[in-house]
Amino acid sequence: MTRTLITGGLVITASDELHVDVLVEESRVVALATPGSHGWTADRVIDARGKYVIPGGVDGHTHMEMPFGGTMSSDTFETGTTAAAWGGTTTIVDFAIQSKGGSLREGLDKWHEKADGTCAIDYGFHMIMSDVNDATLKQMDKLIEAGVTSFKLFTAYPGVFYSDDGQILRAMQRAGTNGGLVMMHAENGIAIDVLVEQALARGERDPRHHGEVRRALLEAEATHRVIRLSQVAGAPVYVVHVSAREALAELTRARDEGLPVFGETCPQYLFLSTDNLAEPDFEGAKYVCSTPLRPKEHQAALWRGLRTNDLQVVSTDHCPFCFKGQKDMGIGDFSKIPNGMPGVEHRMDLLHQAVVDGHISRRRWIEIACAAPARMFGLYPRKGTIAPGADADIVVYDPEAEQVLSAETHHMNVDYSAYEGKRITGRVETVLSRGVPIIEGGAYVGHAGHGAYVPRGLCQYL
Amino acid sequence: MTRTLITGGLVITASDELHVDVLVEESRVVALATPGSHGWTADRVIDARGKYVIPGGVDGHTHMEMPFGGTMSSDTFETGTTAAAWGGTTTIVDFAIQSKGGSLREGLDKWHEKADGTCAIDYGFHMIMSDVNDATLKQMDKLIEAGVTSFKLFTAYPGVFYSDDGQILRAMQRAGTNGGLVMMHAENGIAIDVLVEQALARGERDPRHHGEVRRALLEAEATHRVIRLSQVAGAPVYVVHVSAREALAELTRARDEGLPVFGETCPQYLFLSTDNLAEPDFEGAKYVCSTPLRPKEHQAALWRGLRTNDLQVVSTDHCPFCFKGQKDMGIGDFSKIPNGMPGVEHRMDLLHQAVVDGHISRRRWIEIACAAPARMFGLYPRKGTIAPGADADIVVYDPEAEQVLSAETHHMNVDYSAYEGKRITGRVETVLSRGVPIIEGGAYVGHAGHGAYVPRGLCQYL
Amino acid sequence: MTRTLITGGLVITASDELHVDVLVEESRVVALATPGSHGWTADRVIDARGKYVIPGGVDGHTHMEMPFGGTMSSDTFETGTTAAAWGGTTTIVDFAIQSKGGSLREGLDKWHEKADGTCAIDYGFHMIMSDVNDATLKQMDKLIEAGVTSFKLFTAYPGVFYSDDGQILRAMQRAGTNGGLVMMHAENGIAIDVLVEQALARGERDPRHHGEVRRALLEAEATHRVIRLSQVAGAPVYVVHVSAREALAELTRARDEGLPVFGETCPQYLFLSTDNLAEPDFEGAKYVCSTPLRPKEHQAALWRGLRTNDLQVVSTDHCPFCFKGQKDMGIGDFSKIPNGMPGVEHRMDLLHQAVVDGHISRRRWIEIACAAPARMFGLYPRKGTIAPGADADIVVYDPEAEQVLSAETHHMNVDYSAYEGKRITGRVETVLSRGVPIIEGGAYVGHAGHGAYVPRGLCQYL
Amino acid sequence: MTRTLITGGLVITASDELHVDVLVEESRVVALATPGSHGWTADRVIDARGKYVIPGGVDGHTHMEMPFGGTMSSDTFETGTTAAAWGGTTTIVDFAIQSKGGSLREGLDKWHEKADGTCAIDYGFHMIMSDVNDATLKQMDKLIEAGVTSFKLFTAYPGVFYSDDGQILRAMQRAGTNGGLVMMHAENGIAIDVLVEQALARGERDPRHHGEVRRALLEAEATHRVIRLSQVAGAPVYVVHVSAREALAELTRARDEGLPVFGETCPQYLFLSTDNLAEPDFEGAKYVCSTPLRPKEHQAALWRGLRTNDLQVVSTDHCPFCFKGQKDMGIGDFSKIPNGMPGVEHRMDLLHQAVVDGHISRRRWIEIACAAPARMFGLYPRKGTIAPGADADIVVYDPEAEQVLSAETHHMNVDYSAYEGKRITGRVETVLSRGVPIIEGGAYVGHAGHGAYVPRGLCQYL
Repeated sequence: MTRTLITGGLVITASDELHVDVLVEESRVVALATPGSHGWTADRVIDARGKYVIPGGVDGHTHMEMPFGGTMSSDTFETGTTAAAWGGTTTIVDFAIQSKGGSLREGLDKWHEKADGTCAIDYGFHMIMSDVNDATLKQMDKLIEAGVTSFKLFTAYPGVFYSDDGQILRAMQRAGTNGGLVMMHAENGIAIDVLVEQALARGERDPRHHGEVRRALLEAEATHRVIRLSQVAGAPVYVVHVSAREALAELTRARDEGLPVFGETCPQYLFLSTDNLAEPDFEGAKYVCSTPLRPKEHQAALWRGLRTNDLQVVSTDHCPFCFKGQKDMGIGDFSKIPNGMPGVEHRMDLLHQAVVDGHISRRRWIEIACAAPARMFGLYPRKGTIAPGADADIVVYDPEAEQVLSAETHHMNVDYSAYEGKRITGRVETVLSRGVPIIEGGAYVGHAGHGAYVPRGLCQYL
Repeated sequence: MTRTLITGGLVITASDELHVDVLVEESRVVALATPGSHGWTADRVIDARGKYVIPGGVDGHTHMEMPFGGTMSSDTFETGTTAAAWGGTTTIVDFAIQSKGGSLREGLDKWHEKADGTCAIDYGFHMIMSDVNDATLKQMDKLIEAGVTSFKLFTAYPGVFYSDDGQILRAMQRAGTNGGLVMMHAENGIAIDVLVEQALARGERDPRHHGEVRRALLEAEATHRVIRLSQVAGAPVYVVHVSAREALAELTRARDEGLPVFGETCPQYLFLSTDNLAEPDFEGAKYVCSTPLRPKEHQAALWRGLRTNDLQVVSTDHCPFCFKGQKDMGIGDFSKIPNGMPGVEHRMDLLHQAVVDGHISRRRWIEIACAAPARMFGLYPRKGTIAPGADADIVVYDPEAEQVLSAETHHMNVDYSAYEGKRITGRVETVLSRGVPIIEGGAYVGHAGHGAYVPRGLCQYL
Repeated sequence: MTRTLITGGLVITASDELHVDVLVEESRVVALATPGSHGWTADRVIDARGKYVIPGGVDGHTHMEMPFGGTMSSDTFETGTTAAAWGGTTTIVDFAIQSKGGSLREGLDKWHEKADGTCAIDYGFHMIMSDVNDATLKQMDKLIEAGVTSFKLFTAYPGVFYSDDGQILRAMQRAGTNGGLVMMHAENGIAIDVLVEQALARGERDPRHHGEVRRALLEAEATHRVIRLSQVAGAPVYVVHVSAREALAELTRARDEGLPVFGETCPQYLFLSTDNLAEPDFEGAKYVCSTPLRPKEHQAALWRGLRTNDLQVVSTDHCPFCFKGQKDMGIGDFSKIPNGMPGVEHRMDLLHQAVVDGHISRRRWIEIACAAPARMFGLYPRKGTIAPGADADIVVYDPEAEQVLSAETHHMNVDYSAYEGKRITGRVETVLSRGVPIIEGGAYVGHAGHGAYVPRGLCQYL
Repeated sequence: MTRTLITGGLVITASDELHVDVLVEESRVVALATPGSHGWTADRVIDARGKYVIPGGVDGHTHMEMPFGGTMSSDTFETGTTAAAWGGTTTIVDFAIQSKGGSLREGLDKWHEKADGTCAIDYGFHMIMSDVNDATLKQMDKLIEAGVTSFKLFTAYPGVFYSDDGQILRAMQRAGTNGGLVMMHAENGIAIDVLVEQALARGERDPRHHGEVRRALLEAEATHRVIRLSQVAGAPVYVVHVSAREALAELTRARDEGLPVFGETCPQYLFLSTDNLAEPDFEGAKYVCSTPLRPKEHQAALWRGLRTNDLQVVSTDHCPFCFKGQKDMGIGDFSKIPNGMPGVEHRMDLLHQAVVDGHISRRRWIEIACAAPARMFGLYPRKGTIAPGADADIVVYDPEAEQVLSAETHHMNVDYSAYEGKRITGRVETVLSRGVPIIEGGAYVGHAGHGAYVPRGLCQYL
């Protein structure tokens, strides 16, 4: 039995900031104690003086090796999870995809195949439902038994992932009885497609038009719609990648009514804007994702939402495509730019920067990045906190180190950084995954296949 | 030249209550004057002492001879407009329907055919668009030239009148440029169809289930949606037959934002409720219409909306089906009950009763029943008011007469009254249509074909 | 009997725009008729071709010869009403003031004395209550009998006009039973006085600080407070000179709840801003009034409120003080600047400019400037419209004439213009007061004493 | 060194539910560990199998030995804190009172005298400011140094505790700079006093009229007012004993705007209603407190507020007066009934009942009753949680025991129970205060004077 003692640090969880020692046996935390020996001996002692000791990050929204628009997101489960580890994230929940006509289980199996034996950190799956029908509705129950307890549907992407309101309602009704959580991509894709076609017809073909046609009001509209559908279904709903303040306002309104309505945003919406989409020489394509980046004024609203818990989770929606060879498929037609941005590596750091900048407190940093996604997706307290009994997914974080984000130094398999040159205060020093060091001394010391599939329980906010 | 002098009455318009005499020459009002001779001679003098002199009603929402669900609404233009005349309504705007695949003009022509030479009072047309495509969008401009300036689309009735959000957006965009007004039936029909199917599967087959499956939240949802679509289109929107307070709340919110958003309700939502839908022995079928009747609590909200102008218009949505032979198509399956209720005859009286009951003022009565629909649909001041230059569509109304509504005495071609036995204070005494008496001395003295088509101008609230 | 015929113009009222002739006999309108002879002969014919024929303006908020802060507003009833006439206003409602310890009647008598025999146009009175106690509450009933049906109280000006919330509640309760209307100056004067003292202590002594200490939030607070007090009292409330969008938001919210809550704004809040208050060399003092001017962004909200009827009335709060000899009492201490601005002459023109600028329609211009104040203050339809039976207070307005506002040309007794150099499209051509020309051919042809006291009825919006 | 081991229980904190053992050394928790020996020996082992192990309750609002209306609340610090201990509360924050004209320090000293050497559990103080002036504002800073970091003001009780809006603003401004927290009793006392006088004059003298005159709208008004004042001051505000849903709505609105606005409610508002106030034979007097109990419908809103964190804290506002000899001072005049209710003993149990009833989760129970008040009032993590380093204020709670609340069995020094006969599931079994058992084996085993004064830090929500 290997014992690890992390000593002298400030342990930060969603609820506490404590100067305590952490004792790990094998893969689990077994005790927290006031500093000083409790007669504990350890095989490994990590000196965390002057450092934060935080739970490993939980990224509830990634797309590794995902086929999209004729190409594939550029991170494999191996490269993507390794990059995540570098950034202090120790669990991801990726999206398995049901193929139209196939079963949910077949989709899940395909994703298991991709991930099995390749991951640096633990992983779970959500399921994207491409068909909603009697068969797939029944299959939802089975997936929940298999630890896939959340199901994503889209009001966007007609002809691809789009479900109509009746399908969404039915999936929500099923979730209302089997305990599953429906996740919604909320944009009015039918209306957006009209605006895309009109923009292209007018010769508006640059990346910035991507942001213009995907109107904030159409995100707000779909957000309101899925909230009302969930209310009719008597089920909760989780809205992914909220970017528009008008959409947030709908979530706020619903939560004021006491509805079980949840929302996630992503670092790109908090730190980037339509200014980036407007970068010349097609550089704007680097920032093409959906929902799109919004004008800067929206950021303050999102920070407010994170502070007052109208938004509960910050995920990355990591879905990288290389600028060369992938993003450039959309030169001359923004609608052909693959939608997605890299980000899995930098979420913990960017949100620590938000602490430094005064947007959120340290505890809220850990809550939105670790505890809340773990609770939301049924992983808590195994993941998302540091407590006796929890998996020893632990990050020793240096709050005063400085770093500069760059494609030259990042570990994601993508040829650009959305934050090229950005200075960050704070940096991951050591990362344990289930008690095993995977980042240590400035090096990745883990290995592909260490990461294990984590079946998930039901959402704990209900 | 025939001159008619209406003397001694209280002339009530949307803005004024004046003790003045009204001089009519041929078909038009030519002067209003303080009582007493201004040297006027007249061929006909109507003594209105103790009576109200009000503009003829404008009913902006009727469906005469409309095919629906394999049957036809039971009033022809002749019977329906005659009934309207009995109730003090001198103009209707009926809905012509484009057949799928046909042109708007063909639809309009068909309705002209039905109405031509048969009407007791003047009439105009809205156009229901069954297809939205490049061709029909262009045809909208032509219809406006022909005096059909408003276009109705549906978020309900998938497979029949339903348009998707992209089609609605495109029609609104066109209206934003050609000055047309898009009217929306706002219920989420896709979601409702799921609920209908589920209710039937559970054996819920009575008329009252019609009200239960067509959830208020799904009216609110669609109302919000069409408002946001109109905002994206930069165009106004008019929501027909608002029945749910939650839907009204969306209109209120939009109007507080300053948006050109309008709403209509109908007497059935103000005076009837789900209690009626629950009447035993299939009697509830008499009250099946869409949007459905709501629980009684909604009525207060609608009255508030009418007082504060969040609702501007009260129309009837007159669409009668006989209880025997038509409504009974839905015995054992509420979804097969033809949707619609009779009402064109009683709107003016019911709203006068609302004056008596203290819900609205006399001037507001005339505004919501005459002036506002005339302005909304481009008929003002020719219709909807009493002013020099206006058509002499004038009602002498006895505010103290009493009557009891009943199928035995009404003039609509339908075998039941939705208000059977209801006592009303107030009654039409004399009706002039363009200066010609059509109701007088308790008799209908008009004739089929007196009523003429009125091409309409653009909405005057924009 | 003198007969006047106004022919060929476009008669605009709050509800209609009609090409009709207007026949006046003695002091009253007796008929409106389609153009052309109805056998009418007239002593005087006014050719209004190409002109608007509108009701004379009703300015519901003026302060002539008002003592304030040791000085007196610079317009007498004679100079002030003459200036009003020049600007097309034919009725004012001025504020009589109860002296502390005196009776309401004594205050009213004093103001009758000032006005009697000196006015160019008709006038009525509101009553400012300086004391609220059992005696003055009873006197309210008597004043209503005397045609003074509205009573102003202040949450501002502690030690001067301030009433506490209990006094306000009691006055509102009385109004709830006697039909009176309580008008509120809504700013939290107690809190503002603290901020004033602190600002002066910090050496902030220039006019612009007047705008800074009188915080928009403190106007909103008091507005909300008086609304809730009125709700407890079961009475209506009318909030004077609304300037902050946050205050308007409270009115909007209350009206959405269906409460009988009304609001007035003034041209200075629609056309001027804190930019004016910040003019150098003490020039900002010209714009010192309370509520204060707000940052420019507030203007759009006020226009929205006027369009959607959350604000019903535009008055001037005319209360002029000369820059030299009066405003300069506050050099070095903004709190000593007499509060008030001139404006009675320019309201009709500025609001016509708003029509030209697209903020409001022509009919809404007449509604907010003529009809609504007349209704609100119980003068309609005698004042505020052109209709048979109404006083012949009529303005022939040239919508295409241009003018430049300036102290050199205006007729108010004050040495500056708040709109110096502003170009306006539109100008008064002829003004009749009760059938008698008072402005004609570019000259004032009226006389002091023509204007008569008009006892008022109750508010007509209740 | 005494070591206590609590083993086998479910440790519930605001954030976690963990099956862990708790090791206490002397007065503090030193370790949490997965069950099983970590080589730990202990002097005392508490077997908590099948039980909850929770932090001792923190009651942030009590009034022991408080003079009010010519009498004194009936619990001394000794009897009151002993009763608190029985109910699982291990810390109270009581209100010291500044006498008018005296200094804050003198008030604090007087309360220290009362509490010193008499308390069963730990205690801190808030300070009620009866005067706000330059001297007392400066004294606020000193009190914060002395561990009194929160200051209560009243918009109610004119002539007693009432502060005007300028005074409130100034106190808030000071708090904005020194880190203090202003607590507000928010009711419009000036208006209420008018209504009280009017009710008495109408002969409405029974206890139920207490609830009628203290209108919910007047709580909402004052709540909105203090929020806006705090916004102007740039300071937080904490509203005590929120009882009306309209007041909660104001807090919700402010929090949606991102303002640092907090609210507390009390068990009486969650479990009792105006039905109790209407109990015959003057029994309603038992329930007279201010803010008053509200109609039952308000309860659902308060539960919603607690779930969504628009209300953060549940305190008792414990302020008992005996029915005989104290409450009966108000027979024949409800305004003379001493305001206040007993409650300090039953808060933890009643809120556990809310868990059983499904209103809140177990973790939220601990948050609103322990952690949030400790954070709000600067006691966390010493109080309010179970964590290494925290005071060992620990309750072993039997979630399945049943009890019936009654004056016959309760330990508060008051002759009635507001919950007489109410059945509760759940009961305190053992209570440790700083490691020392004070309730054990169904007996109170503590002693007066064990409880120590706890100087408090600043509010941790800012």
